[in-house]
Amino acid sequence: MSVTLNCDMGESFGLYRLGDDAGLMPLIDAANVACGFHASDPDHMRTTVLRAKEHGVKVGAHPSLPDLQGFGRREMKMSREEIANSVIYQVGALLGFLKAENMPLNHIKPHGSLYNMAARQEEVAQGICDAAEVFGVPVFGMTGTLHESIYPQRGIRFIPEFYADLDYTPAGALIVTREHPAMDPDLMASRCVRALKDHQGTATDGSLFPVGCETICVHSDTPNAIDIAKAVRSAIAPWH
Amino acid sequence: MSVTLNCDMGESFGLYRLGDDAGLMPLIDAANVACGFHASDPDHMRTTVLRAKEHGVKVGAHPSLPDLQGFGRREMKMSREEIANSVIYQVGALLGFLKAENMPLNHIKPHGSLYNMAARQEEVAQGICDAAEVFGVPVFGMTGTLHESIYPQRGIRFIPEFYADLDYTPAGALIVTREHPAMDPDLMASRCVRALKDHQGTATDGSLFPVGCETICVHSDTPNAIDIAKAVRSAIAPWH
Amino acid sequence: MSVTLNCDMGESFGLYRLGDDAGLMPLIDAANVACGFHASDPDHMRTTVLRAKEHGVKVGAHPSLPDLQGFGRREMKMSREEIANSVIYQVGALLGFLKAENMPLNHIKPHGSLYNMAARQEEVAQGICDAAEVFGVPVFGMTGTLHESIYPQRGIRFIPEFYADLDYTPAGALIVTREHPAMDPDLMASRCVRALKDHQGTATDGSLFPVGCETICVHSDTPNAIDIAKAVRSAIAPWH
Amino acid sequence: MSVTLNCDMGESFGLYRLGDDAGLMPLIDAANVACGFHASDPDHMRTTVLRAKEHGVKVGAHPSLPDLQGFGRREMKMSREEIANSVIYQVGALLGFLKAENMPLNHIKPHGSLYNMAARQEEVAQGICDAAEVFGVPVFGMTGTLHESIYPQRGIRFIPEFYADLDYTPAGALIVTREHPAMDPDLMASRCVRALKDHQGTATDGSLFPVGCETICVHSDTPNAIDIAKAVRSAIAPWH
Repeated sequence: MSVTLNCDMGESFGLYRLGDDAGLMPLIDAANVACGFHASDPDHMRTTVLRAKEHGVKVGAHPSLPDLQGFGRREMKMSREEIANSVIYQVGALLGFLKAENMPLNHIKPHGSLYNMAARQEEVAQGICDAAEVFGVPVFGMTGTLHESIYPQRGIRFIPEFYADLDYTPAGALIVTREHPAMDPDLMASRCVRALKDHQGTATDGSLFPVGCETICVHSDTPNAIDIAKAVRSAIAPWH
Repeated sequence: MSVTLNCDMGESFGLYRLGDDAGLMPLIDAANVACGFHASDPDHMRTTVLRAKEHGVKVGAHPSLPDLQGFGRREMKMSREEIANSVIYQVGALLGFLKAENMPLNHIKPHGSLYNMAARQEEVAQGICDAAEVFGVPVFGMTGTLHESIYPQRGIRFIPEFYADLDYTPAGALIVTREHPAMDPDLMASRCVRALKDHQGTATDGSLFPVGCETICVHSDTPNAIDIAKAVRSAIAPWH
Repeated sequence: MSVTLNCDMGESFGLYRLGDDAGLMPLIDAANVACGFHASDPDHMRTTVLRAKEHGVKVGAHPSLPDLQGFGRREMKMSREEIANSVIYQVGALLGFLKAENMPLNHIKPHGSLYNMAARQEEVAQGICDAAEVFGVPVFGMTGTLHESIYPQRGIRFIPEFYADLDYTPAGALIVTREHPAMDPDLMASRCVRALKDHQGTATDGSLFPVGCETICVHSDTPNAIDIAKAVRSAIAPWH
Repeated sequence: MSVTLNCDMGESFGLYRLGDDAGLMPLIDAANVACGFHASDPDHMRTTVLRAKEHGVKVGAHPSLPDLQGFGRREMKMSREEIANSVIYQVGALLGFLKAENMPLNHIKPHGSLYNMAARQEEVAQGICDAAEVFGVPVFGMTGTLHESIYPQRGIRFIPEFYADLDYTPAGALIVTREHPAMDPDLMASRCVRALKDHQGTATDGSLFPVGCETICVHSDTPNAIDIAKAVRSAIAPWH
């Protein structure tokens, strides 16, 4: 079984630029494309889908809570129906740009707080499933969370994901901050190798916890994202 | 050849209600569903698509300039690419809800100022074609405008539309106001019959101008929309 | 000491209308004017301030979480600084319209989930104080919550408020729903009298709990708001 | 009479950064602070006002058309009342942050398309005056346009402004693009000196046109804004 490298892409908005998409796209296998709720707009979505196509990169949707100012990283209380409908709207919008390029939708990866809420709150996870069912694609998520237990119960393929550039607590929970600091590329690469070889993640205190890893995520808004992506790509070559 | 009755639907937003969709849906053949840029949100889109399905009403997209406060009735200068991408985004979003109900997209009808700008500005009309091409559906529009000349040039089926509830200038141009006043249902119905029988519209000064009419539009935000729809539906029965 | 009647006003948005402001304004003493984050826009704010002036009604700010689609009734996790800055922005915006009419700002009343979060979460209550300090006006709130304990600690005058049109739990907590149902005007009026005479609120199970009441709130989006306001106004005349 | 250096500031939004405000603030006399309609948000407004205070920089409001995605650089058709109310809202919001720091409002400078529309369309210029009257501050603008003729007619002080980093047509009209390219600092400085010494601007074809210049603008989103500001500041020292 092979592992892929995925990256959040297309997170610019209007005149604002975020992430070196041009530099990262050649290094990855799958792009999680922002859909306008936490970042991006129709023009950047078009550009991002085109760029993915040029590099043979698969495109998934990266839907979010509706919070542009907070970049989708502030929790909001929404009902299961609101979650489902918001995700259907965003994934549908991306589907428009994929149709324009005759490309298929590859997967869904919820963004930021939506991702984290789905890991712990059943109603949110079910809302994501309600939307994913419509499109019939796998959903990326974390082992040891509701992602892993609920998505497959609903008949949706769960693809376990490991984060190359975020810290984990000893309990295996992601430490998510509004802005992402630079990380040591070699350390990140070695953590990925351990995740693939030993199925173990490394927490901030050095302790290990079990992880699944079919895909590895690099964030484009980490300052040294390209160095991390290169180091990880090179290190995971045997499994790639 | 038969004529259809179409109506802008799903123009509520959050707690705000606009239009008696429940009352109108049984009276029409095709719903132009708002896509969140001038009105609606993911929850109202879902509800509106479901309601159309219940009544066997065909669903088209009703994309707009991005102006919720102005209800898409304020002109904005946008490039052809911006127009195209905005429309692809909105139609795609609606497609998500149609997929959820296994319904096809029937047509695209640009809303408000986008519709009017496309009637007169070639770049806007081309931008709409760029988007319509992606989805392969007809576009509703007005005879005697760029809608009629440009859409077919681009291989897009143009469906001429007559407005049951708006006034026309002697030159055959629509008089669009931010809010729609109540209109006399019988007068409106007789204008529709003249459009169908004689292919003529009636201007505010009583003069006539040539019109095409394969579909007749009733606005849901006209105060007596239901009375107008009933009167028109009854009057056009021979052609319906 | 006299009691006042306050009402959330100016909650229309663009073409959308909410609440019978014209009917309610003559019946109230203080208007809590929406500031554009959960409802309203610059045009409706201008109109609402003018209408308050005509009727000699005092104007307070009604700031909200930034969530137009959810009408400020969905909780969002925001930091103390984000809360403070959002409130300063909104109250300042209202101040512009008050300056245009040479009217003073009378008070601040946080809206919806912001109000409820401040009742229970210290960081939110402190953020509201950070903003209220800038404007030097009282803040409306509920007895038995952090409103009552924290606002005065910060040197901000706390004005206890009783809701004429919402139900309370036996613990004295407001039951807030996204949409407000019609309520029995006489029952509401009798609850207000009890609050003023006996300093007691009535819960859904008929049990009583202690309340302070220097001002009574009627919501403009309750379907029979005018009947409730009239009944309450008449019943509280001895204290008014 | 002395000339000042002004700069558009606080144009970041959420996680997005635009302009080197920290680098430019020490070089300027007056900051035009974005108010959330084309850029900025309550948090960045707070930060920007604080930064201006630290450097003794005067603060003006930089209100815009409501178009975050288009950065206020797409024209929109709005009525005089809509323009006035939008500007009052934005300037009021900034006033909140100025009150928090006990700072006065120094001026108003409309942003982007609002500025350009006011130069040519009387209704827009009058709408800006309607708002400026409320706050009693001068408005920055261009000589040879409606700014110069209408603002003083309405009793509002007009402060003529010269652009250090934009090109002018031979007719003296600004050439505004969505994104600003880097410009030669020395050439820009020499144009400013000519504007101050000879009251002449230099067009793209080298021809001269009459200009007034009480303040010189540098845009923070020009890539080499700091070099331009330094070169201009040094060159205009005799008039500063």
